[in-house]
Amino acid sequence: MAKELKDLTKRSTDYSRWYNELVVKADLAEQSDVRGCMVIKPYGYAIWERMQQTLDQMFKETGVQNVYFPLLIPKSFLSKEAEHVKGFAKECAVVTHYRLKSNEAGDAVVVDPEARLEEELIIRPTSETTIWNTYRKWIHSWRDLPLLCNQWCNVMRWEMRTRLFLRTSEFLWQEGHTAHATREEAEARARQMLEVYADFAERYLAIPVVQGVKSETERFAGALDTYTIEAMMQDGKALQSGTSHFLGQNFGKAFNVQFVDKENKLDYAWATSWGVSTRLMGALIMVHSDDNGLVLPPHLAPIQVVIVPIYKTAEELEQLNKRLGEISDNLRQLGIRVKYDNAENKRPGFKFADYELKGVPVRLVMGPNDLKNNTIELMRRDTLEKETIDATGIEAYVKNLLEEIQTNIFTKAKTYLDSHIFECNNYDEFKERVKDGGFFLCPWDGTAETEAQIKAETQATIRCVPFDVSQDNPGTDMVSGKPAKYRVLIARSY
Amino acid sequence: MAKELKDLTKRSTDYSRWYNELVVKADLAEQSDVRGCMVIKPYGYAIWERMQQTLDQMFKETGVQNVYFPLLIPKSFLSKEAEHVKGFAKECAVVTHYRLKSNEAGDAVVVDPEARLEEELIIRPTSETTIWNTYRKWIHSWRDLPLLCNQWCNVMRWEMRTRLFLRTSEFLWQEGHTAHATREEAEARARQMLEVYADFAERYLAIPVVQGVKSETERFAGALDTYTIEAMMQDGKALQSGTSHFLGQNFGKAFNVQFVDKENKLDYAWATSWGVSTRLMGALIMVHSDDNGLVLPPHLAPIQVVIVPIYKTAEELEQLNKRLGEISDNLRQLGIRVKYDNAENKRPGFKFADYELKGVPVRLVMGPNDLKNNTIELMRRDTLEKETIDATGIEAYVKNLLEEIQTNIFTKAKTYLDSHIFECNNYDEFKERVKDGGFFLCPWDGTAETEAQIKAETQATIRCVPFDVSQDNPGTDMVSGKPAKYRVLIARSY
Repeated sequence: MAKELKDLTKRSTDYSRWYNELVVKADLAEQSDVRGCMVIKPYGYAIWERMQQTLDQMFKETGVQNVYFPLLIPKSFLSKEAEHVKGFAKECAVVTHYRLKSNEAGDAVVVDPEARLEEELIIRPTSETTIWNTYRKWIHSWRDLPLLCNQWCNVMRWEMRTRLFLRTSEFLWQEGHTAHATREEAEARARQMLEVYADFAERYLAIPVVQGVKSETERFAGALDTYTIEAMMQDGKALQSGTSHFLGQNFGKAFNVQFVDKENKLDYAWATSWGVSTRLMGALIMVHSDDNGLVLPPHLAPIQVVIVPIYKTAEELEQLNKRLGEISDNLRQLGIRVKYDNAENKRPGFKFADYELKGVPVRLVMGPNDLKNNTIELMRRDTLEKETIDATGIEAYVKNLLEEIQTNIFTKAKTYLDSHIFECNNYDEFKERVKDGGFFLCPWDGTAETEAQIKAETQATIRCVPFDVSQDNPGTDMVSGKPAKYRVLIARSY
Repeated sequence: MAKELKDLTKRSTDYSRWYNELVVKADLAEQSDVRGCMVIKPYGYAIWERMQQTLDQMFKETGVQNVYFPLLIPKSFLSKEAEHVKGFAKECAVVTHYRLKSNEAGDAVVVDPEARLEEELIIRPTSETTIWNTYRKWIHSWRDLPLLCNQWCNVMRWEMRTRLFLRTSEFLWQEGHTAHATREEAEARARQMLEVYADFAERYLAIPVVQGVKSETERFAGALDTYTIEAMMQDGKALQSGTSHFLGQNFGKAFNVQFVDKENKLDYAWATSWGVSTRLMGALIMVHSDDNGLVLPPHLAPIQVVIVPIYKTAEELEQLNKRLGEISDNLRQLGIRVKYDNAENKRPGFKFADYELKGVPVRLVMGPNDLKNNTIELMRRDTLEKETIDATGIEAYVKNLLEEIQTNIFTKAKTYLDSHIFECNNYDEFKERVKDGGFFLCPWDGTAETEAQIKAETQATIRCVPFDVSQDNPGTDMVSGKPAKYRVLIARSY
């Protein structure tokens, strides 16, 4: 393991390869034998599970309830919302048959041609259509609104180029779908859920994000507005980490979801949808980790503290087991997730390298001398700093340190982000500098033509119109020379 | 609602219709527009979620870790384990294409014939094949064992006749898949997980179960032994509520999963798999509920206590809000899930009927006179008994009562089960009595022929060889007259 670890490509050598290797070496996920679909391994899943539980609680605090809608969607549903079909009906897994049978030799199975479906079914790429088709039965009066549902599920989009967590054909996500009586309420809900995502990203993932609204080109298919949180990876590229859509009455009209309002008039319901996915795992890995492996924020780390005894004799081990067992128990009573690793079939050096690779925030080591002196060696993963400290009171010290590490890695990421957002008004300068990464605040005339030109010439896209950037006097479009409508954030992205 | 509720078919009139109506009226689930697939509504999902959380914790306490494997399985995988293919490769949803395109008119989408997959993919009916195909990469040495993985996911089996929760084409479940170095360890794990299921059923679902082992005919396809928990519905029919399989080395061999054992010899890994599904929702509903609606065990009820104020004037409401707000807060501090329903747009009678239908274990009602006298009216859902008691100390009283209700509904179900298990040694008598439901303990010669005859003539099947029934001198097979090998449990089932 120590050797394999050393083999991890350095970020400065090849950032992309470093990421691909790290996901596999840290036991987070691997490719399956189905093209573009991944296996999420126990260690990776344990992180995702903590994300799920935290977000689920945050959703529920805003009144959201969980539901489950079918995996399969009748093909015809996809054509009902005109914009939606353009964006989503294309790269889908299509179920055409419902039975296999043995072949003539009896040694394999073949598709039974007699079991062809009358209408093909699509594995959901997202569930607006099937959910709004059902909402028609649930919504009749303003009293039925708002309807605030969410589901945790798998979805599938047939991607041609895939990367673990960042872009896979099947992925896990949550999709929230709300229905409202008024435009204002729906718009407020879409913004509220973006706030939840931003808050989650900053407090748990320790990832600072830029909040904003997408350009028309980059909107979700069928939305009137798409709000986004954009995070910056260590190569200066953007990763869209969560989106929340104000869908207007598009799905209400497409699926004829009408309700009687307080004035006894019929109206179509207003909609939002919002989602985050296992893509967040990619962001988490890319933002904090280093050439030694993962760096996990304590709030999401499956193991927050690992404790390793160093010993030569069985007697030493016994004494260390006793003392370190006490410390482990005390830490657990403080709500800390501890692993005490006294496994005899691995050397300490191997363990150290492995937990470093896996990003465990704090490592405690005790040997016979420490035991004599009542000291313990502590290493924090974020800075790799080691210190030997008094073993008495170590529990409170570690508890504080975990919060300090959480804050420190957020601050580090925030400093990086802030120092890589550049104002830029000159297209030549932009073209040159964007190659090195970073987010560029540029004046844009608001046309799809300019947007397309930037993308074609630089591979960079308009990530959003940021909320916290003043839009007074946005200046002159750096490409067209026309008066700018907005200052937008432009970057290359994953 | 009060009227609709009255319309619930009585169990004695038509048990099956009562169930179907109740699932829909209590807002648990409904049919979707995809044949055989259901929508799980918020109230139903909230119950399922509690089941999940509880079981997940119980699994983890035995060392199990969660993972996620792909939804789609290459068709060829299904043929690798000879028995498995017979049982599972038939009624499956088959993905043949990966793209849609717009039709010529541009108003609908059609399957793109150019996007045909080289090898068809199957939506998982269960994941042994794909998981063991991956375990080959994870398992090399005895040090990698045991490997204890579980996933919560959706699966699909193309059922011809479906019923909400009991049998749906898509359902939610967990599937555990473990790998071991020895036969003994794998067998013990399979039994251990059955114990977890039985414990969960009894302590949370409040459903007593019979544990046992399936006959060869009823075994999981590819298993050497299938262990089962069988519950009795109120019509005396059995519902298989959870199974745990000892798979021997069948999948180890089919997918070539070999490891070096402690003696440095190569051997195939030993396997188990085990699962419970949304079918448990069906059991929960059918075992406890009555002609007034659901009866939920407090340990799983999303709302344990509902509190309703009765008032005429705004002033009365204000005073009641204050007092009942205090009681609600106090109950919540005791960890009780409370809903305070002072909604003004529904009459108390409507609320009472609705919460009765939804099976909320305890209802508290307070009016102006109660407020004056410091009393409160309490109704328990399991017995429908009402009493007016002192409002001081109501919190502790309710906390105890919830445990009492949990115990009471378990005891009621246990009494029913015990009084409907009959010893029977005569086939004519069996044929007559099995029509009225119940579990029959009968001597069986152990042959598939006898088993098939019983099934063909009575629609009853051998549910299991129960663990807690003595197998000394099992007697004479009631059908063939041959010496019996076992006393088995026979019943009609869902």
